[in-house]
Amino acid sequence: MIIDKQSTILVVGLGLIGGSYAMALSKRGYTVFAVSKEQDDIDYAKEKGIIKDGSTEVDSKFISNADIIIFALYPHIFVDWMKKYGQYISPGTLITDVTGVKGAVIDRINDFVPEGAEFIAAHPMAGKEVYGVQNADDGIFHDANFIIVPTRDNTPSAIEKCRLLGEILGFKTISYLNPKQHDEMVAFLSQLTHCIAVSLMCANGDPNLVNYTGDSFRDLTRIANINEEMWSELFLLNKQALLYEMDCYRVCFDKLYNAINDGDEQTIKSMMRLSTARRKMFNKDGK
Amino acid sequence: MIIDKQSTILVVGLGLIGGSYAMALSKRGYTVFAVSKEQDDIDYAKEKGIIKDGSTEVDSKFISNADIIIFALYPHIFVDWMKKYGQYISPGTLITDVTGVKGAVIDRINDFVPEGAEFIAAHPMAGKEVYGVQNADDGIFHDANFIIVPTRDNTPSAIEKCRLLGEILGFKTISYLNPKQHDEMVAFLSQLTHCIAVSLMCANGDPNLVNYTGDSFRDLTRIANINEEMWSELFLLNKQALLYEMDCYRVCFDKLYNAINDGDEQTIKSMMRLSTARRKMFNKDGK
Repeated sequence: MIIDKQSTILVVGLGLIGGSYAMALSKRGYTVFAVSKEQDDIDYAKEKGIIKDGSTEVDSKFISNADIIIFALYPHIFVDWMKKYGQYISPGTLITDVTGVKGAVIDRINDFVPEGAEFIAAHPMAGKEVYGVQNADDGIFHDANFIIVPTRDNTPSAIEKCRLLGEILGFKTISYLNPKQHDEMVAFLSQLTHCIAVSLMCANGDPNLVNYTGDSFRDLTRIANINEEMWSELFLLNKQALLYEMDCYRVCFDKLYNAINDGDEQTIKSMMRLSTARRKMFNKDGK
Repeated sequence: MIIDKQSTILVVGLGLIGGSYAMALSKRGYTVFAVSKEQDDIDYAKEKGIIKDGSTEVDSKFISNADIIIFALYPHIFVDWMKKYGQYISPGTLITDVTGVKGAVIDRINDFVPEGAEFIAAHPMAGKEVYGVQNADDGIFHDANFIIVPTRDNTPSAIEKCRLLGEILGFKTISYLNPKQHDEMVAFLSQLTHCIAVSLMCANGDPNLVNYTGDSFRDLTRIANINEEMWSELFLLNKQALLYEMDCYRVCFDKLYNAINDGDEQTIKSMMRLSTARRKMFNKDGK
């Protein structure tokens, strides 16, 4: 199976991720259109060759002509959009997304997918701490992971087409998780890390710290620069899994706290040895 | 004041930091000798022009000929060394260090500094997650902070000489903190961040995580690859300040936990706005 170069791809939501998808697909010869709320974003993307054309209006012809539709919207806007305009999607269209939580989204989306079209959820584990199509950069996918999140309702051909999409976008590793596994993984790897960075940054307001810091604090708090609208929505949509991961992490943090308090060098060292061994697996290029 | 190019500088402890100091000083034309426990490290450093010569023996002439001695040892080894060999240091010698805690170290060192010599503590806020003189790289100082930690016993000329040393090494920003301020700062910026990374890495042992992760988790846990001998010693020597910072951080983490649990979007968002505003100050090059 291939994704035909004659395919028409519609990106809904020209932000950093939607824009980077559009950029990657246009570079590889696909015809990409966009629907997005700001005319400036459409104009910029057209001028830079990121899309062929776009509209701030949700034009029914635009939607019905698309072979693949990629949604890069906040979860609640995605659901609202499908509720209003899902009816214009043609049979045979493959719908996918980039949403950061799945359990709370997939069922609600499927309610508005017309007969003959199919929604296959996906999550590109890539990003930057900047926003907007003006920062679009398909290079962010190259060393990154792509997660496909099928349900038992998905067809093998839609799953395979989504895998091809991840390949075309340039992702290094493509994996499959069910919605529950995905949300647990994301709670730990992504949401908990953002909770940690935000909490750490809130814990000390000394404006001189920048003159004393090393890179460890800088790297750890990079993601404390956070879009509060998007992330508060993602946290609350995945509340149960996130609270569970926060609990597990707190158990380890408290264990380390108590070991320091007790002068229990053996426990401190054994935690450090475990963290060192585990962290090595995450090094890029085996380094 | 300048540091005379004819000065003889002795580095005690040729690890990553001692080696990087030696490399920077040799490049700038100073004559650098080293005392270190492994002959291989001495040989490597000599061969690469990082030092002029070195010895695994603590030779009294080596020590007494030095104008400046830089200690890059674990805290307890530094203290033991001074106890045994401090007597060989000549009057007029400037002694400095790179030790990560100060309150627990400075007074003990001063007990063994001979009349006419002077110890001025300093802390280069730079490093890597690799060890040894074989990884020495004076580039790590270029965008980094250098903290001088004078006490009321230090003379203005020693403080100024230490500032010049930081300048010669290539540090971007040089600041002054007293030992208590230093240890509080380091507890927050460095030790707490390492506690967080270690705890996070200990909280989940799923070997598949590497196929799902994004860069936020990678960046946050870079320092979970940790030298347990050195860091457990640093933690315990700065126990009071570290536990205080762990407490403050936990208050913020718990506040965020409760807000998520309560669905209190306003508190979540206000913490995120605060963290975003504060984090912007830490961006390099104003980005």
